Amino acid sequence: MNKALLRASLAEFVGTCFLVMVVIGSGIMAQGLSTDQLSILLANTIATGVGLTALIWIFIAISGAHFNPVVSLVMYLKKEISVKQLIVFIVFQCAGGLFGVMLVHAMFGLDLFQLSENDRGGFNIYLSEVVATFGLLVTILGVRKLHLLAVAPAVGLYISAGYWFTSSTSFANPAVTIARGFSDSFTGINPEFISAFIVCQIIGAVLAMLFMAFLQEE
Amino acid sequence: MNKALLRASLAEFVGTCFLVMVVIGSGIMAQGLSTDQLSILLANTIATGVGLTALIWIFIAISGAHFNPVVSLVMYLKKEISVKQLIVFIVFQCAGGLFGVMLVHAMFGLDLFQLSENDRGGFNIYLSEVVATFGLLVTILGVRKLHLLAVAPAVGLYISAGYWFTSSTSFANPAVTIARGFSDSFTGINPEFISAFIVCQIIGAVLAMLFMAFLQEE
Amino acid sequence: MNKALLRASLAEFVGTCFLVMVVIGSGIMAQGLSTDQLSILLANTIATGVGLTALIWIFIAISGAHFNPVVSLVMYLKKEISVKQLIVFIVFQCAGGLFGVMLVHAMFGLDLFQLSENDRGGFNIYLSEVVATFGLLVTILGVRKLHLLAVAPAVGLYISAGYWFTSSTSFANPAVTIARGFSDSFTGINPEFISAFIVCQIIGAVLAMLFMAFLQEE
Amino acid sequence: MNKALLRASLAEFVGTCFLVMVVIGSGIMAQGLSTDQLSILLANTIATGVGLTALIWIFIAISGAHFNPVVSLVMYLKKEISVKQLIVFIVFQCAGGLFGVMLVHAMFGLDLFQLSENDRGGFNIYLSEVVATFGLLVTILGVRKLHLLAVAPAVGLYISAGYWFTSSTSFANPAVTIARGFSDSFTGINPEFISAFIVCQIIGAVLAMLFMAFLQEE
Repeated sequence: MNKALLRASLAEFVGTCFLVMVVIGSGIMAQGLSTDQLSILLANTIATGVGLTALIWIFIAISGAHFNPVVSLVMYLKKEISVKQLIVFIVFQCAGGLFGVMLVHAMFGLDLFQLSENDRGGFNIYLSEVVATFGLLVTILGVRKLHLLAVAPAVGLYISAGYWFTSSTSFANPAVTIARGFSDSFTGINPEFISAFIVCQIIGAVLAMLFMAFLQEE
Repeated sequence: MNKALLRASLAEFVGTCFLVMVVIGSGIMAQGLSTDQLSILLANTIATGVGLTALIWIFIAISGAHFNPVVSLVMYLKKEISVKQLIVFIVFQCAGGLFGVMLVHAMFGLDLFQLSENDRGGFNIYLSEVVATFGLLVTILGVRKLHLLAVAPAVGLYISAGYWFTSSTSFANPAVTIARGFSDSFTGINPEFISAFIVCQIIGAVLAMLFMAFLQEE
Repeated sequence: MNKALLRASLAEFVGTCFLVMVVIGSGIMAQGLSTDQLSILLANTIATGVGLTALIWIFIAISGAHFNPVVSLVMYLKKEISVKQLIVFIVFQCAGGLFGVMLVHAMFGLDLFQLSENDRGGFNIYLSEVVATFGLLVTILGVRKLHLLAVAPAVGLYISAGYWFTSSTSFANPAVTIARGFSDSFTGINPEFISAFIVCQIIGAVLAMLFMAFLQEE
Repeated sequence: MNKALLRASLAEFVGTCFLVMVVIGSGIMAQGLSTDQLSILLANTIATGVGLTALIWIFIAISGAHFNPVVSLVMYLKKEISVKQLIVFIVFQCAGGLFGVMLVHAMFGLDLFQLSENDRGGFNIYLSEVVATFGLLVTILGVRKLHLLAVAPAVGLYISAGYWFTSSTSFANPAVTIARGFSDSFTGINPEFISAFIVCQIIGAVLAMLFMAFLQEE
């Protein structure tokens, strides 16, 4: 691995690690302060949206700030990264997510290793993940043509909306989905549903790529 | 229909579809988590404002990101789009909104076809829609002269404020108003009030156009 | 009055009118939905901050988007506007504010003319208005040197913080303070305290001007 | 002390003073309006995030808007400021913070001098401060290379997320930590934990500097 790829991969590792900590940690903090489900989701939403925006701004010039295997997949399908970079990125994203879930558990004094028991199944939930991931990729592919600086807030804002307008709360990210399988807290997902979520996320991402290719005349 | 118009129309369809999903879906999600009316409106507000901002950034370079028949009407009256584009846009906006209401119902496992029973009538509500739509068009016409990138956050912020400072919660959009007639949830509107809302929205939009034409010396 | 001044003055009138509607209307809406004082102030804060940002973006290129007599006063003391413009601006700002309070009452179906009974007195409250207005002017004078586009969000963000870190909730604006005297709702102020508030606001504004003049070496 | 350093130091004094007032004051205001711990932290978060963004925009062109001894320390280690400037900045930051805590107590009519009794100890809390400060410095060092204007919102957004994803609520600032020792309110910290917090903050900051030096190939 050359130095440029190592740097980019480390950025993906740390970025995904922090993203997972923000998503899961804010859910843990909120659950510790209240039992009101709307308030918990609101706190979780605000933390995730603003944290994600900051993280993309930090790392976008170094790695593209994917933090998300289906984003990397689309960049590969659009021939913007090589198959080698795709594989390395996915490995570092998943590893970063798993490290993040353990680190955030450590920060809150919880067991490092947990398995979620949150059932998240059903046709409507799966449909929701397709729609959510479609929207995420449309956001990235659309806004980066407008202005690179706007990608970070656009993605943060889109995901903030996604927590509310989709019934699955818009996971839209296989690396984060896997990590959330290992936290038995507000934002967790019972691991038996992870593979279905990832299939839906890939479908949504590829549909978005095709749709935007037509819209942007590429 | 030429390819450029088809692209722009598809952008209006998908953008209005997502806008309706954000508006209605976040209301459904919030109602499912709490009975506190202020908290529900707050969640609905945040999701709508941030989602709308993201959607405008995504599509503004492709179609102008109207997602709103009275915005298209004003652009026609200012001779920026043709009557043909106006009609096609309105059709795609309304169709996108109706598709959005069905898709969001599907995501939440609800009946696809519903009729709202939320009564939203009275002089003060209609006045509120005139003021709300006046403000929306003043925002668009004012900020686009300042910087194109700022239009998206300005509109998202204005509508977020509008949910609170107008008694109608600022529908300000005929396509979204029609779609909301078909959802018996927090953000719905009994269809018998739709035509009055649309009349008020047109009045507010045209007043804004005249006001800004004087202010901007056109 | 020449046409340029008329335009700028109308922008001040409409901008201050909408600002007052946002401040007072969001308080009325929130009070109608909940009795929880923290939630009401939170909704009031969010609406005010985002609405103010949108309004400044809309009108900054036309009138400077003061909407505030002490901002105009500082611009006069810095010799950026004439005494005539200062007086005309203050008249239009105050008139816009009073029109706004009546219009927002009309939108919510309330009596147009009201007098507030919210007592807001005491040394600590007056100190708070000095600090709040000092901070507002430091924000404007500091950020406009950085980037004109950032003034609008900076002011919206500063006032949002001000609603929470000052005991007076940062009125910081004589025209809005006067208008709030005529609304017996959450954001109102008993008219007998208005003159003291305005004195404190002038003190804070002038101190900020002197401080920034030293810092910016003018 | 030459005039440029005096100006920059005064900017650090006033900026840190306002930052402390925003952090502590919003906690006091929120505690006075509700007993719901989630709502209090949410109000505290929003005020802090938006206030910090405004403050950085105001002063970044004058002093770099550190308001934070470990930020100044990293700038010194990167040879961007002299040891003299480092020492003067730290003195003015700490003095500004202490002045801020007294001024905010005065605004809320409370005793000027207080000692906090909030115990904030334990390995997981200290780990959290290391992570929080690491992330803050990564944010600053990463985003300033992307666009200077984006540093202010990035830091405000990161700290807003930090209030939720770290168990310590991300103090991440020795000057603010010391000031918070002198307020027996929501955001206070029992002074006996201050030195441990500062050690953790220094560790996190230096780790971030080393990490970003590798990532940015300096």
